[in-house]
Amino acid sequence: MPDPIFVTDPRHAGIARDLYAVARDLPLISPHGHVDPALLADDEPFGDPARLLIVPDHYVTRMLLSQGIPPDRLGVPRRDGGPVETDPRTIWRLLAANWRLFRGTPSRLWLEQTFRTVFQVDIPLTKDTADDVYDAISARLAEPGFRPRALFERFGIEVLATTESPTDDLSRHAKLAADGWGGPGGRVITTFRPDDVVDLERDGWAGNVARMGELAGEDTTTYAGYLDALRRRREAFIEAGATSSDHGHPTARTVALSPAEAAELYERGLRGEATADDAETFRAHMILEFARMSIDDGLVMQLHPGASRDHNRALFAAHGRDVGGDIPMATDYVRALRPLLDAHGMDPRLRVVLYTLDETAFSRELAPLAGGYPALFLGAPWWFLDTPDAMRRFREAVTDSAGFYNTAGFVDDTRAFCSIPVRHDVARRVDAAYLASLVVQDRLPFPEAAETMADLAYHLPKRIFRLEKR
Amino acid sequence: MPDPIFVTDPRHAGIARDLYAVARDLPLISPHGHVDPALLADDEPFGDPARLLIVPDHYVTRMLLSQGIPPDRLGVPRRDGGPVETDPRTIWRLLAANWRLFRGTPSRLWLEQTFRTVFQVDIPLTKDTADDVYDAISARLAEPGFRPRALFERFGIEVLATTESPTDDLSRHAKLAADGWGGPGGRVITTFRPDDVVDLERDGWAGNVARMGELAGEDTTTYAGYLDALRRRREAFIEAGATSSDHGHPTARTVALSPAEAAELYERGLRGEATADDAETFRAHMILEFARMSIDDGLVMQLHPGASRDHNRALFAAHGRDVGGDIPMATDYVRALRPLLDAHGMDPRLRVVLYTLDETAFSRELAPLAGGYPALFLGAPWWFLDTPDAMRRFREAVTDSAGFYNTAGFVDDTRAFCSIPVRHDVARRVDAAYLASLVVQDRLPFPEAAETMADLAYHLPKRIFRLEKR
Amino acid sequence: MPDPIFVTDPRHAGIARDLYAVARDLPLISPHGHVDPALLADDEPFGDPARLLIVPDHYVTRMLLSQGIPPDRLGVPRRDGGPVETDPRTIWRLLAANWRLFRGTPSRLWLEQTFRTVFQVDIPLTKDTADDVYDAISARLAEPGFRPRALFERFGIEVLATTESPTDDLSRHAKLAADGWGGPGGRVITTFRPDDVVDLERDGWAGNVARMGELAGEDTTTYAGYLDALRRRREAFIEAGATSSDHGHPTARTVALSPAEAAELYERGLRGEATADDAETFRAHMILEFARMSIDDGLVMQLHPGASRDHNRALFAAHGRDVGGDIPMATDYVRALRPLLDAHGMDPRLRVVLYTLDETAFSRELAPLAGGYPALFLGAPWWFLDTPDAMRRFREAVTDSAGFYNTAGFVDDTRAFCSIPVRHDVARRVDAAYLASLVVQDRLPFPEAAETMADLAYHLPKRIFRLEKR
Repeated sequence: MPDPIFVTDPRHAGIARDLYAVARDLPLISPHGHVDPALLADDEPFGDPARLLIVPDHYVTRMLLSQGIPPDRLGVPRRDGGPVETDPRTIWRLLAANWRLFRGTPSRLWLEQTFRTVFQVDIPLTKDTADDVYDAISARLAEPGFRPRALFERFGIEVLATTESPTDDLSRHAKLAADGWGGPGGRVITTFRPDDVVDLERDGWAGNVARMGELAGEDTTTYAGYLDALRRRREAFIEAGATSSDHGHPTARTVALSPAEAAELYERGLRGEATADDAETFRAHMILEFARMSIDDGLVMQLHPGASRDHNRALFAAHGRDVGGDIPMATDYVRALRPLLDAHGMDPRLRVVLYTLDETAFSRELAPLAGGYPALFLGAPWWFLDTPDAMRRFREAVTDSAGFYNTAGFVDDTRAFCSIPVRHDVARRVDAAYLASLVVQDRLPFPEAAETMADLAYHLPKRIFRLEKR
Repeated sequence: MPDPIFVTDPRHAGIARDLYAVARDLPLISPHGHVDPALLADDEPFGDPARLLIVPDHYVTRMLLSQGIPPDRLGVPRRDGGPVETDPRTIWRLLAANWRLFRGTPSRLWLEQTFRTVFQVDIPLTKDTADDVYDAISARLAEPGFRPRALFERFGIEVLATTESPTDDLSRHAKLAADGWGGPGGRVITTFRPDDVVDLERDGWAGNVARMGELAGEDTTTYAGYLDALRRRREAFIEAGATSSDHGHPTARTVALSPAEAAELYERGLRGEATADDAETFRAHMILEFARMSIDDGLVMQLHPGASRDHNRALFAAHGRDVGGDIPMATDYVRALRPLLDAHGMDPRLRVVLYTLDETAFSRELAPLAGGYPALFLGAPWWFLDTPDAMRRFREAVTDSAGFYNTAGFVDDTRAFCSIPVRHDVARRVDAAYLASLVVQDRLPFPEAAETMADLAYHLPKRIFRLEKR
Repeated sequence: MPDPIFVTDPRHAGIARDLYAVARDLPLISPHGHVDPALLADDEPFGDPARLLIVPDHYVTRMLLSQGIPPDRLGVPRRDGGPVETDPRTIWRLLAANWRLFRGTPSRLWLEQTFRTVFQVDIPLTKDTADDVYDAISARLAEPGFRPRALFERFGIEVLATTESPTDDLSRHAKLAADGWGGPGGRVITTFRPDDVVDLERDGWAGNVARMGELAGEDTTTYAGYLDALRRRREAFIEAGATSSDHGHPTARTVALSPAEAAELYERGLRGEATADDAETFRAHMILEFARMSIDDGLVMQLHPGASRDHNRALFAAHGRDVGGDIPMATDYVRALRPLLDAHGMDPRLRVVLYTLDETAFSRELAPLAGGYPALFLGAPWWFLDTPDAMRRFREAVTDSAGFYNTAGFVDDTRAFCSIPVRHDVARRVDAAYLASLVVQDRLPFPEAAETMADLAYHLPKRIFRLEKR
């Protein structure tokens, strides 16, 4: 039975297993992700294995596309409502027939471990076993113990944050709160993600802003009203349990504008006259504005820059956003964050968690920044980098300048609810392997490594994302 | 007897050796390189050891230059015809006396393995043994079994692609075809490399274009005639066995011009009025033009961007191109390839193999791109990166997002005919070591690793470079 | 007793220890650093443990700041003379209470090894043992054997270079020479660091130039006089033993200006009218000017580009320069160094040692450059990269293209006198581990690895920094 510890030397592996044992059964803290809150609010049974595990997983559909299998054949909905494959078993067999594409990838690791540890299905997936695996998982999904809330408890999740736009009415979180699952200190909380109402270039921005104004009861035809609306929505999110916000801009650029300058850009946006430069400046300015709001209301800021969104234009045209068409870009943090850090980098009330898709920034920029400013922490390796090898490279690259305690712990950032325990488990194994390398090299005594292990797996994310006072 | 498997842990090494055994005796596919076709067309005996192994190897002469030994003393011809060292034994002794400079480098590995496995000379090279090694290799070179075609067969080469300009009349390939060695499906084929007639900045560009026009029987005084000439030459290359083209621009930039815009740049070039910007735009445009031709005629495109050519100006002035004076540059692919990918990235008829000299692009840009577009594949680590350590880093960096099956297999890219088997052997050992790390870490079962091993060594390059229908 | 060799596999570790044994007791060559020469000129006893080991160590104070402990509480002097913590025991306890922040960092490694090997204090530092460790080190510091010159001899330092500005009168080096410790061929020598008089943007630049003029007896109101003054000061530095200069510009840019163009920028600087662009151009030009001076007088040039100085503005405002507020930046060398290399890259009289804070440049730019130009050598991993893991990555990244003999050996670059033996020891252990990996992988025979080991540890820095004729 596979039990990877991501280490080759036997003595090293032994120590790694001892450290992993410290963290294995600790509760899961999931302070950032994209699970649909309706899943837990409604607690309906999951659908079939393909719609649960393949169709919405853009890591999987992207890889199949790269070898010429279009998303239509995998059941990914089209924007034009055109026909796509609807038979889940056909979709499942297509994955199985192309399973070799996933050798060595994190998708394979997560899926195999999910089959085994979540669904207790130990049959290796091949072209020939596709139906057997499908049927076995289907059978599990029909059991009451495989409804979302039952799995949530079985997974040992202590807290799970979903991500919503200010234009969301948070009704599903209200339902969760009514059921004793949500609200401040609850098991399922939200995260404030304002990109929809901040990015002047986004389709429907003006409509989003108006919708936010309605929900907030503020007049968003002025910049001052827009800021008030954002503050009101943050309050509502905090009432729905939020402890953090999330910001996914193309770059990490920040800029300090006067209110009058910002208002001018905002008004240009409302008039539909904003240029690409205006939009970039406004996004950069709003990071500082949100930092000020965070200092007031305590939301931890997460910055997720560096994705070239919808790079694959044909894919976007056919299937829309978040289907595997984004590509990382080289990302500067040193110059980009300077205005934010000049203004608030030394303020202990501010907490900013930095992510990257550009791993060259780990040792050169992010670790020195997080190791030099009280307000900064390093987020876990993100997206294309949330893999055993990249997570190891992250620790090797950042520990020198940032240590362990300027890192924010693992964040699964996933839409795939059933993969949550596996992803945390892999992260814990990788951290155990890294800490064990320090022990075996005489650089850290075992007891300190063990304490660090528990901190990385549990205590640090809980503290840094302000999930402690519960 | 050295038998490096590039692994330290004994259990890991054992599995690596088992995987290497799967690939060790598979035929060599060499779909991209710079061997002179005259070598195999004429099948004359090789010269002396120095002229065979030192003088033309810019990895070697560059390293000696870096420690103050000028290429003149190594027999590298001067552009002005001035005197250079002519005694091969003197040149050989100079290498031996400075052999320590090559400790830990791939040049040492390749040369030592070439001495041993190609020439059966097991004497370690030192200042004191220089003459012994020289004499032993000289003796071999005098034997009939060491003529190029005999070695070709002994090396187990199934197919070898050389690289020619559209201005080449392909007479050596005609000779090879006449001898039953060349032509479509032959053992020695050509590759279409049009840089000479695409780069407006290159010395002699206009003359090259005119020469191509003559060979093609097309009037290249117009842009339309220029495109027709390129198409004719591609046909001639395909008749000489070519299955791919190669494009070595300074950047990966692509741009979609209208025919009128492209014609204007072309005419400016003919008038000698093109600026550096014009030249860059024209190169970028021609990549799209060649993509369209590839969709029509099936040639696989190889992109080799990112070299600052002739960076060492004094070296270029004295000895010309391709003598070790090029330096890698940071290279963007995400923005640069967008116009190409917008136009043709989803077309299954197009096949583009991407190379880089900038290894930061592996995980950040190249693997996500190849793992997201059907038209893209990743070429082997190139040039400064064709080393055991860099090849390992390549697999560690790209497998997460691209898997194995979006990589195109090993390409030796060498001018050094006698180093071909050694280079493939090293690549196979490195891939075995990487695959074994997955096996030993419980991430891939041995049988799947073994199948992947054979694919990487043989089946993948054969398929991706369209060498199968033979 | 910890004895880290930075390797996990036992056989690999055994060979590494054998190689380390070759270098362990070789004398220390410290050709670049920031020890205060007054320390050795005056040979006064050190102060308390906190003022010796914590207050001036910006690696330590920076990490504590990153977790909200301001430098004031650590006794770092304020520019405004405001109150800071003055009790060394309180400062020491604060470090001990936060010792976990340093797990896995080089600071912890250096400090622990310093406690143990320099002060023979074996008590692990914890909150509870803080006073014991403090008292034990204090007791040592009171002994005559722990005065600077006694430690210098005990450390086995053969030569130590400090770093001074041309505005320094070198009186401490005169004292050292008078005592038989300094001067050409002496044990303590200086380094010529002209940034103070080259960087038009630096506060007090004009005053610095005037001061230099006085010391040199030259009229610096003209550019020609400025160059003469620099030449005079270089002569004085050479008389004080200097064999190298050091240049710490924001970028690696070089540019070839005519004397008239340079004079115009200089005069603009004197009039207080220089722009940021002027300053960058002047710095870039002066690198070429200094290269010409080096060709004449033989000083080895060191280039230290790529730091965003005083990035933490609040820290700079409160505590000034060199207190941990600098951050690395992405740094280009390929284009930036071209003018310098065009002019003098092939001149065997010139010797330029290149450093970087951007490790992506190691394999992509620095190793190919150093492996292709006689004038270039690679400096040791610098600052944020002077750690076991980064030093290993350096060797793995540069050896392919530069080998060992285009690298300049270890440079401690430290202000912390007592950490010198530990830093060299760590570097020797890391190089031993890397060389052992080549031995264990059958890529280098042990005797050659052993010879290389001694070269890296001792012979190379001595030769490259021109410290041999002594």
